[in-house]
Amino acid sequence: MQAEALAVLSEAHPGAVSTSQEDLAMYSQDQGPVVETVSPVAVVRPRSVDEVQAVLRWATAHRVSIVTRGAGSGLSGGANATPGSVILSLERLNRIISVDPDDETAVVEPGVVNADLNAAVAEYGLMYAPDPASYRWSTIGGNVATNAGGLRCAKYGVTRDSVLALEVVLADGTLITTGHRTFKGVAGYDLTALMTGSEGTLGVVVGITVRLRYLPRDIRTLAAYFDDFPQAAAGVLAIGRARVQPAILELLDGRTLEALDGAHGSDLRSHGGSLLLVQTDGFGAAAEAQAIRDVLVGLGAQVSDEGSEEADRLVDLRRHSRGDAVEDVYRVGEDVAVPKSQLVHYVAALETMAARHGVHLKVVAHAGDGNLHPTFWVQRSDGPQAEERLEQALDESVRSALALGGTITGEHGVGQYKRRWLGWEQAVEVLDLQRRIKQVFDPLDILNPGKAIVS
Amino acid sequence: MQAEALAVLSEAHPGAVSTSQEDLAMYSQDQGPVVETVSPVAVVRPRSVDEVQAVLRWATAHRVSIVTRGAGSGLSGGANATPGSVILSLERLNRIISVDPDDETAVVEPGVVNADLNAAVAEYGLMYAPDPASYRWSTIGGNVATNAGGLRCAKYGVTRDSVLALEVVLADGTLITTGHRTFKGVAGYDLTALMTGSEGTLGVVVGITVRLRYLPRDIRTLAAYFDDFPQAAAGVLAIGRARVQPAILELLDGRTLEALDGAHGSDLRSHGGSLLLVQTDGFGAAAEAQAIRDVLVGLGAQVSDEGSEEADRLVDLRRHSRGDAVEDVYRVGEDVAVPKSQLVHYVAALETMAARHGVHLKVVAHAGDGNLHPTFWVQRSDGPQAEERLEQALDESVRSALALGGTITGEHGVGQYKRRWLGWEQAVEVLDLQRRIKQVFDPLDILNPGKAIVS
Ligand SMILES: Cc1cc2nc3c(=O)[nH]c(=O)nc-3n(C[C@H](O)[C@H](O)[C@H](O)COP(=O)(O)OP(=O)(O)OC[C@H]3O[C@@H](n4cnc5c(N)ncnc54)[C@H](O)[C@@H]3O)c2cc1C
Ligand SMILES: Cc1cc2nc3c(=O)[nH]c(=O)nc-3n(C[C@H](O)[C@H](O)[C@H](O)COP(=O)(O)OP(=O)(O)OC[C@H]3O[C@@H](n4cnc5c(N)ncnc54)[C@H](O)[C@@H]3O)c2cc1C
Repeated sequence: MQAEALAVLSEAHPGAVSTSQEDLAMYSQDQGPVVETVSPVAVVRPRSVDEVQAVLRWATAHRVSIVTRGAGSGLSGGANATPGSVILSLERLNRIISVDPDDETAVVEPGVVNADLNAAVAEYGLMYAPDPASYRWSTIGGNVATNAGGLRCAKYGVTRDSVLALEVVLADGTLITTGHRTFKGVAGYDLTALMTGSEGTLGVVVGITVRLRYLPRDIRTLAAYFDDFPQAAAGVLAIGRARVQPAILELLDGRTLEALDGAHGSDLRSHGGSLLLVQTDGFGAAAEAQAIRDVLVGLGAQVSDEGSEEADRLVDLRRHSRGDAVEDVYRVGEDVAVPKSQLVHYVAALETMAARHGVHLKVVAHAGDGNLHPTFWVQRSDGPQAEERLEQALDESVRSALALGGTITGEHGVGQYKRRWLGWEQAVEVLDLQRRIKQVFDPLDILNPGKAIVS
Repeated sequence: MQAEALAVLSEAHPGAVSTSQEDLAMYSQDQGPVVETVSPVAVVRPRSVDEVQAVLRWATAHRVSIVTRGAGSGLSGGANATPGSVILSLERLNRIISVDPDDETAVVEPGVVNADLNAAVAEYGLMYAPDPASYRWSTIGGNVATNAGGLRCAKYGVTRDSVLALEVVLADGTLITTGHRTFKGVAGYDLTALMTGSEGTLGVVVGITVRLRYLPRDIRTLAAYFDDFPQAAAGVLAIGRARVQPAILELLDGRTLEALDGAHGSDLRSHGGSLLLVQTDGFGAAAEAQAIRDVLVGLGAQVSDEGSEEADRLVDLRRHSRGDAVEDVYRVGEDVAVPKSQLVHYVAALETMAARHGVHLKVVAHAGDGNLHPTFWVQRSDGPQAEERLEQALDESVRSALALGGTITGEHGVGQYKRRWLGWEQAVEVLDLQRRIKQVFDPLDILNPGKAIVS
């Protein structure tokens, strides 16, 4: 990009544009696996929707790539800078515009942090249901752009299920509204759903109308230890067969328990080789928890006592453990999903794979949705061949999920990192349709190019 | 269309193509308001997906419009024949391909009737949640194409929320798969949601993977009579404020009660001027029903006794009343939705409007979603001016819903009939995006032209 273009931008938006080395470094990537660090040419932090529109008009005029960014907590490299790009950080658009307790809706700017919205609506007995484990810092705009899942989406659905309407700035700076403020609405094509999960490649989300849910009156939590993962996975199926719908159903394998013990000085692993965390909520919470307890005890699980606070503490731990960033290991977290019945088979396949390729493996799963987060790692000191083995294990783990009827990404998105797998899942005709939809919205390919779809 | 083209089709698909006057008449329109009766040139009833693909290839080669049809129960004219069109009826593609009780999914052909799917999965303790009042004869394919709502979508969501993957035949005959068999998945743009509600204008849905829900263990039903509609609408808000989520929350006004009394010899109207039907389900059903009962009694409602079967009978009546087709009235049913808090204001506005234009009015509402079905009618004997007054009242009722933050269609779709209102709700830029998406999927405009979007 020419220096003049940048000068034009800086002059038009005093105080919003930074080219400091510090900012360029800080905004160059998200939490995804780093393939290659690219520095953006500038970071823009607009203070209004008008300013976002102006930036997009400028980008169109000067053919500059725009990488929109929420909190940068993404795990697929979706917010990574690309060569010649400007980072559009929406952190300053962080107002809750309105909460309408009778309509059970709220209108927010994209930079509002998930936890802040939840705190604001709690006083009305309401909640914003989608709760990615990053909810204390990820933004609603980022959640929408990735169609984020979370812990309680087993019962309440993913982000898409809570988004009613969007305000979107298109590539040329046009502001449009999609969707409706009502719970239901079918006028025209569902552009709101199309935008949700599009990872900043179709438009910049600058306003979100969300549907709120009722804060549950009662919450019950169980922790159930099993000897091993297959038995815990059988517990997941058994809860399903009993036709009881938990709000949260998380599965942690033995190595995850060991890692938690290491980080927190706990002794979880000594209780069992795999842990199932179950939360029920609402008017039926107690009865549901009892039904689930009976099922799991019947399978031989060691289930936490009723009323003990241990299980709640463990859910908190699961929610808040940010993952340990150990410098001396090369680590990649995965995000496949498989049909529920395949959970056991899939983890068995993973174990075999990890052993064959000589890589370490631990697994947590949003088991109620069949969504698994295996983490593979090798020691950096083992050299580039170890990293290659890791990549092979990753590829294989993705192929295996697909072979079992699964998907390459349950909730984190394709971003930059998973594009190499997208063609394994989707046929060329489907990839082509997406490319052509992208062209409809962004003919100059300036919105987050090289992300989310195969171009 | 040339006769030769038709001959080619008939020869290629012996037994599948009809041009009998009877069939042409029977398949010429759906249950929506009839603007103009147009006869199709043929009706095709393919017996396989291959045959659907062949028909689409033929249509592309000969530039023939294809109007896909499920059961023809649509209320917006979406399945109405257009000049020169061929009706593609999917009634013979009616196999349930598989039910996977552990995965809690089923795969069906598009012609499967909603009630048949529900019957098939009930033996596993499962249900297919979206239940339009037409569920005894409308098809899953039609439900997907309209993103149908229903009674229990207050709690369980609309069709889109239960659809995981689709098989779709594109305009040129290509067969694609969208979505994923897993509960969650974010690979690529959400083509499944884009297709859902697209009313046969983007592709022909030939296979559907649905997510099933658990059959509720317990169901409680209340019937609450209020003096008038505003008080019943206040009841809806009060239930919301108590933060209790019913599965069903239907509101019937006094004139609807009178109509039911007339049709069934009942005496509902004598009990009150408006009826709220409430159903709770699941492990908390009894406690939820009790909480709702307390709220409504507190508002002065006359609530049915616990355990009485009257309320269940009334829900059945609401579900199954097909609407009285009286030949001597001109009647149009509406389908707007408004934010919940606006229900009262909206119905007050409707009453004023109906009086001013001298038209009759009755209202039922899926009140839990703010989705209203006002029906306006005039006597045919009152002549064309009466019909014009009715059209004016309709236009005004739609404008009024929009002014209150609502939408022109909550669940029935735009079809043919509501296209005149679409531009009132959506900006030209949004209409234009839809037109361009349509071009991506259907460059020759042969898929249900003149429906769903403004072209
Ligand atoms: C410890 C940890 C736990 C996590 N747990 C979960 C989990 O349980 N479930 C889950 O789904 N994810 C999880 N994530 C991933 C991540 O938090 C989510 O993807 C989240 O939605 C990203 O939000 P963000 O604001 O950080 O967006 P960013 O990371 O800044 O951006 C994500 C993508 O969205 C685009 N984008 C952001 N804002 C906008 C906007 N306003 N308009 C258009 N495009 C935009 C970006 O370009 C990028 O492609 C976790 C991450 C971490 C680090
Ligand atoms: C008494 C009554 C009650 C009703 N109650 C409700 C209700 O509660 N909620 C609700 O939402 N609707 C309701 N409806 C409307 C109607 O039943 C729904 O819209 C239903 O989904 C239509 O299904 P169908 O199989 O009859 O489709 P059709 O009417 O045949 O078609 C509807 C539209 O979908 C298209 N289409 C159909 N099948 C396919 C396919 N396989 N691929 C692509 N396009 C296709 C058609 O071209 C048309 O545009 C009711 C209708 C009646 C008559």
